[in-house]
Amino acid sequence: MLAKIRKIGSIGLMLYYLLVLTVPVVVNAQTAAPAAPAAAATPAPQGPDPNGSATGGISDLTSFNSFKDIKNPTVLELAAAVGHNRVAINIMWTLITGFLVMFMQAGFAMVETGMTRAKNVNHTMTMNFMIYPFGMLGFYVCGFAFMFGGLGTLGTLGGYAGLNNEITWTLFGKPFGMLGNVGYFLTGPAYDVGVFTLFLFQMVFMDTTATIPTGAMAERWKWSAFCLYGVAIGTIMYPVFGNWVWGGGWLSQLGANFGLGHGYADFAGSSVVHMQGGVIALIGALIIGPRIGKFNKNGTANTIPPHNMPMAIAGCFILAFGWFGFNPGSTLAGADLRISVVAVNTMLASAWGALASMLWIWFVRGNKPDPGMMVNGMLAGLVAITAPCAFVNATGASIIGLVSGILVVESCFFVERTLKVDDPVGAISVHGTNGAWGVLSLGLFADGTYGQGWNGVGATTYMGKAGQGLTGLFYGDSSQFIAQVIGCVTCFVTLSVISYIVFMVIEKTVGNRVDPETEIEGLDIPEMGSVGYCGIKMDKASENVTSH
Amino acid sequence: MLAKIRKIGSIGLMLYYLLVLTVPVVVNAQTAAPAAPAAAATPAPQGPDPNGSATGGISDLTSFNSFKDIKNPTVLELAAAVGHNRVAINIMWTLITGFLVMFMQAGFAMVETGMTRAKNVNHTMTMNFMIYPFGMLGFYVCGFAFMFGGLGTLGTLGGYAGLNNEITWTLFGKPFGMLGNVGYFLTGPAYDVGVFTLFLFQMVFMDTTATIPTGAMAERWKWSAFCLYGVAIGTIMYPVFGNWVWGGGWLSQLGANFGLGHGYADFAGSSVVHMQGGVIALIGALIIGPRIGKFNKNGTANTIPPHNMPMAIAGCFILAFGWFGFNPGSTLAGADLRISVVAVNTMLASAWGALASMLWIWFVRGNKPDPGMMVNGMLAGLVAITAPCAFVNATGASIIGLVSGILVVESCFFVERTLKVDDPVGAISVHGTNGAWGVLSLGLFADGTYGQGWNGVGATTYMGKAGQGLTGLFYGDSSQFIAQVIGCVTCFVTLSVISYIVFMVIEKTVGNRVDPETEIEGLDIPEMGSVGYCGIKMDKASENVTSH
Amino acid sequence: MLAKIRKIGSIGLMLYYLLVLTVPVVVNAQTAAPAAPAAAATPAPQGPDPNGSATGGISDLTSFNSFKDIKNPTVLELAAAVGHNRVAINIMWTLITGFLVMFMQAGFAMVETGMTRAKNVNHTMTMNFMIYPFGMLGFYVCGFAFMFGGLGTLGTLGGYAGLNNEITWTLFGKPFGMLGNVGYFLTGPAYDVGVFTLFLFQMVFMDTTATIPTGAMAERWKWSAFCLYGVAIGTIMYPVFGNWVWGGGWLSQLGANFGLGHGYADFAGSSVVHMQGGVIALIGALIIGPRIGKFNKNGTANTIPPHNMPMAIAGCFILAFGWFGFNPGSTLAGADLRISVVAVNTMLASAWGALASMLWIWFVRGNKPDPGMMVNGMLAGLVAITAPCAFVNATGASIIGLVSGILVVESCFFVERTLKVDDPVGAISVHGTNGAWGVLSLGLFADGTYGQGWNGVGATTYMGKAGQGLTGLFYGDSSQFIAQVIGCVTCFVTLSVISYIVFMVIEKTVGNRVDPETEIEGLDIPEMGSVGYCGIKMDKASENVTSH
Repeated sequence: MLAKIRKIGSIGLMLYYLLVLTVPVVVNAQTAAPAAPAAAATPAPQGPDPNGSATGGISDLTSFNSFKDIKNPTVLELAAAVGHNRVAINIMWTLITGFLVMFMQAGFAMVETGMTRAKNVNHTMTMNFMIYPFGMLGFYVCGFAFMFGGLGTLGTLGGYAGLNNEITWTLFGKPFGMLGNVGYFLTGPAYDVGVFTLFLFQMVFMDTTATIPTGAMAERWKWSAFCLYGVAIGTIMYPVFGNWVWGGGWLSQLGANFGLGHGYADFAGSSVVHMQGGVIALIGALIIGPRIGKFNKNGTANTIPPHNMPMAIAGCFILAFGWFGFNPGSTLAGADLRISVVAVNTMLASAWGALASMLWIWFVRGNKPDPGMMVNGMLAGLVAITAPCAFVNATGASIIGLVSGILVVESCFFVERTLKVDDPVGAISVHGTNGAWGVLSLGLFADGTYGQGWNGVGATTYMGKAGQGLTGLFYGDSSQFIAQVIGCVTCFVTLSVISYIVFMVIEKTVGNRVDPETEIEGLDIPEMGSVGYCGIKMDKASENVTSH
Repeated sequence: MLAKIRKIGSIGLMLYYLLVLTVPVVVNAQTAAPAAPAAAATPAPQGPDPNGSATGGISDLTSFNSFKDIKNPTVLELAAAVGHNRVAINIMWTLITGFLVMFMQAGFAMVETGMTRAKNVNHTMTMNFMIYPFGMLGFYVCGFAFMFGGLGTLGTLGGYAGLNNEITWTLFGKPFGMLGNVGYFLTGPAYDVGVFTLFLFQMVFMDTTATIPTGAMAERWKWSAFCLYGVAIGTIMYPVFGNWVWGGGWLSQLGANFGLGHGYADFAGSSVVHMQGGVIALIGALIIGPRIGKFNKNGTANTIPPHNMPMAIAGCFILAFGWFGFNPGSTLAGADLRISVVAVNTMLASAWGALASMLWIWFVRGNKPDPGMMVNGMLAGLVAITAPCAFVNATGASIIGLVSGILVVESCFFVERTLKVDDPVGAISVHGTNGAWGVLSLGLFADGTYGQGWNGVGATTYMGKAGQGLTGLFYGDSSQFIAQVIGCVTCFVTLSVISYIVFMVIEKTVGNRVDPETEIEGLDIPEMGSVGYCGIKMDKASENVTSH
Repeated sequence: MLAKIRKIGSIGLMLYYLLVLTVPVVVNAQTAAPAAPAAAATPAPQGPDPNGSATGGISDLTSFNSFKDIKNPTVLELAAAVGHNRVAINIMWTLITGFLVMFMQAGFAMVETGMTRAKNVNHTMTMNFMIYPFGMLGFYVCGFAFMFGGLGTLGTLGGYAGLNNEITWTLFGKPFGMLGNVGYFLTGPAYDVGVFTLFLFQMVFMDTTATIPTGAMAERWKWSAFCLYGVAIGTIMYPVFGNWVWGGGWLSQLGANFGLGHGYADFAGSSVVHMQGGVIALIGALIIGPRIGKFNKNGTANTIPPHNMPMAIAGCFILAFGWFGFNPGSTLAGADLRISVVAVNTMLASAWGALASMLWIWFVRGNKPDPGMMVNGMLAGLVAITAPCAFVNATGASIIGLVSGILVVESCFFVERTLKVDDPVGAISVHGTNGAWGVLSLGLFADGTYGQGWNGVGATTYMGKAGQGLTGLFYGDSSQFIAQVIGCVTCFVTLSVISYIVFMVIEKTVGNRVDPETEIEGLDIPEMGSVGYCGIKMDKASENVTSH
């Protein structure tokens, strides 16, 4: 009886969907398809407009702009509406690309967790998860104010000038911007649609830096120590160097003050985001020490195999996807059409990086074509192109990417075999080494087609040419390369000092590292209270290190 | 011989790529880099424009607008082109954010599947997969017409007025909009680019509601019963309350008709989407009953551990990413620059929610910092900020998020220990409890800076101030809070009744629950015909419940 | 002692965050919330603008446009700014949707890897990873130039006319465009923001084709052979047919030259992308032969179960998400408001495909509702709607999707049982069969509301009606259907020949297939040097085939 009812119900379901299709067929047959309207300047459509060419007219402007007489707009009124569209285009672009960058958090979580061991899966994943709120709230409290409080006007995001309080020292008779000082908690003068747009975009950049050290320090970092680091990174570790480069601080003024090219330039953060993260990762990995079993007594290293390469590779795709927000979004303007060049350069460098890594490890180093190295090669290319992406042409991007793919392989070997530092995911090489390469390569390959007036340099002409932008050594401006070297060294020194202080304070209070029993057992139960995988049989033996 | 050929082929491959790089270097060296053109109002570029500033002129307007004399456009012709741009900005924004919301389906699938057991993985994942087509087609057939058929004009999406048939009752001498009645199958008057945009955006919202109960009823729901629910949710369960709030129905008119603030307001769906889903989940979980082994005879609950936390955490990131479509997209306008405030509020609340959950469970409840609770804390913050996101400032968003993170922990305990309801993923607490908190918090924290003229209230002045928008209790408008309470109670009562009817009809026909043997074995083979994981050794013992 | 310090640190952390919240509350209380400004045409906001309506004015136009007197702009100057906005809208749209398509690479990787065996997981995933750089670099070197070098002007992307060198043969007294010949390495005339936009969008389309055969040839393809294929696909295999359809070649001119409708039309690539991929997959699978154990001696087939269905389903969601870039993005114009119809048609067809597959396999074929078939049903609907998405209405899209869902099930059976071809993921049926159905269905269901002047046909009137666009057989234009049949047959024949040549050259040099020992052991260690999963116990027995 019940079975019969069920059968009838199921068949009824199918009949329902077939019936459903016939209704619109009949309806469509009766009512002729609406004629495609000729493209016209009608203010608003009368009937339905399936074509779209009759939709959108002057009456659609009144929601966000005011007109004295909507039937006879003045040129100035119309200009205000065009300007509102322009800013809307720029804000939309900055927000959407910012969303893509935020999604990179998932990519980092998957790459780092996939490349480490199953017994620490919950701990590694959760560090990557919680760094997002920790970093964000620190940046909200004061990090954003420190970094951008002295920015001046918002430019493409509406021209608001409320972020105008930079703490400036005078050195060598020149103004040295040191730190911003307005915008705390996004209240008062910061409660502005342009400022909020900038905050969102810059916050996800900061969080990218914040999540890099969790890879290098994975599988042995105490949860409480990580939390303290999480508070420090967004509040103070990240914003200082960031202010110097992007907040109007002294590095950005090397051109205006000392004639060094267009000042230190880092379009989307090879140094501000990646090299900072890489240096913090290096200092952190040095202080916390290698995982038990990583190095033998004679100093040779063992391979600790990744537990889930598909997760890592899927994560890398998410990162490559998000990077299309990272780099092209850094124009802060959809109306800056250079975005297409930025996007293509970004993907070309990533491809060259992956390919070069594969060919190098396979044919030069004589190993199998290693998936982990291909992943790191693609990421290396992305990191390296991040600074120069807007200033170089496709050929420059290709060379930068090719070099980065080789560099990341050799750097990984160097960090492990020479420095004897244990970096489970290669974060130091991917973000640190290639971040440095990125800012230096900008000083070599910038071709002069973009960046007119950058950092207040060459607003009308540069190197005697109208419209000339940032120019690298190979295109005739050696002073730009010098600025890049100064910025690169500054990044390394500053972050080394800051990181050392932060990690040593943590070391002396809660301690950075879990005890050896916890590390051997896996951090998931002792630190997080639960395992990451359940109902699946684990195979601890296979996690053992293999010497090589 | 063959080996030699292969070797040569491989080396050839490498040489090919090195060669490939030299060609453009040579080409670039020969042809000087194109000069960066000065920014100019040129109609169309003559040569290549690598800079982008010479691209885009009046001739680019003729594809979607018509001009009598393209060399001498009139102001009105130009205004039509500006209006077309404005609508294009709004439609692009609405579509792109709608795509992000659609992607949240993947996030829900991963959170729910990760948090349940490996033996039901195919069933849980497939429910989350098929609810997307089931819900969509029901909404296409009639759900959209019921919800938005009485909308009036499309506003920012082009101003088309074809959705204008609302079934209205007169009660207390006032018009009470009950249900829309045009737009079935998207044919006839609904075949319009603006209407299709609205359909896409609203469809993915409906599907979010639709997928919430699959979490609360997971691991025991019969596939055929789920299919019938899938037909019901998009056609009739979701659109009724939705029409009352967003389709011009009676709750939205509480302000215009009864002077209660700006009427019941729910910017992006804390109640329309999440609380509806949470109430359906509650009624569904009550009717279907707890999983075997969840509760002991003495009424105490056992923990059934999640099988894959990395999957759940990655899914949560996808949800947080998609929420940047959910909330900012709900302006239906990229030209409404408040989108940046919405986006920042959304992410601040999510961070506070995750952090508060972690600190509460760790320091107040005295457990380990539980990854599952951090995930639910972030989701709780996102759900709660969904209603107020456009109306509050960053401080309001922070407090709302902080409260939600505590609320979700306590609500989970309450549902499990007091109500004795088995909700495997915490859907009732995340979406139901925090959905209610979201709409109430709007009535407390709305700061008056946004929403001028909302629901036809205060088009010129409100509370004596020009430009004053929605205002909460803490900012002086207690009537808004009353409207919020009415809407919140209405949501709970209406959806309880509708859900009870639907689930009882299913119960009496095909039955909601699989038989106990199927449940113990796992639903994958009996219901779906195949297991989710193959080639990996399962460990059923570890899936056993642990008392706590 | 230390424990005490740690405790204090932890509590300090909590106090810090509570304190943090009180500061802005106090600040907000002191400084009154900024008044919501009345919407006004102010050039730039004086104070912070939390509402957004005062942001954006004429002064925001000067960054990318020049004005003689910014206080008194001329109509022509303003028109240039409006045109710049228009192109920015189009370029933003094309880039963002292109990013979504790029992300589909992750979806393909997860669907293909999830549907194959755990012992080959590293190999399958890495093929899907490396095809992205391989394909991209080939397209960069010459593929793009071959396909689009004869395009003419860029239309919506700025109207630049530098891609104007098509190799044309004269046949039957008519010009037959055969291959483009400018744009190599993106240098010289190709270094243009519009061209770079087009490159990005078309590159990710090409890479979609490139990744399809990796599914059909999975679990037995030699890595070095795959690399050679990777070089061939982007350089020469993909661009030829692509030029004929999208690059201005002869198939697109069937209307202008021979009066066949609007010429062969394929809006977003059912044939150019998917059917090409499907035919290459078919030829590749034929040449490489079935996996060991797939077919019994009597010719009956065995089922080789997928190893990770959640991965495959999550991947399918990523594909469905990315398809909102694929189809709506193919307008290359955000200002073409038909994008909303395209997006809705796309999702409707995907839903119908998934539903039809489920119902067909369940009720007609009498199996359990198979998750793998639902996934392939959704993908089939997406593939089929890709060609007609812009030209049909919602009813047409529904029927096309419904048919595709049935077609994919029957095609899978046909390929396996009649052709005896082993296609581990159903790529031939999803992309090949439904790609063909897609282009044919366009010739049936196109309703005439869109495509006025397409391929140079009917710029003013068509079939006697102003504004009439592409029209299918059911709406009165049988010549369009004939054009579709010609294009479909051309695709099959051309790609069969090209693929046969490429795969046979590889066969005779490095060889396509790994040796049987490698195949039985799994390709991960022998080909890639490492396993995909580590620390998890594998269960090779369960991977054994089951006869059916």
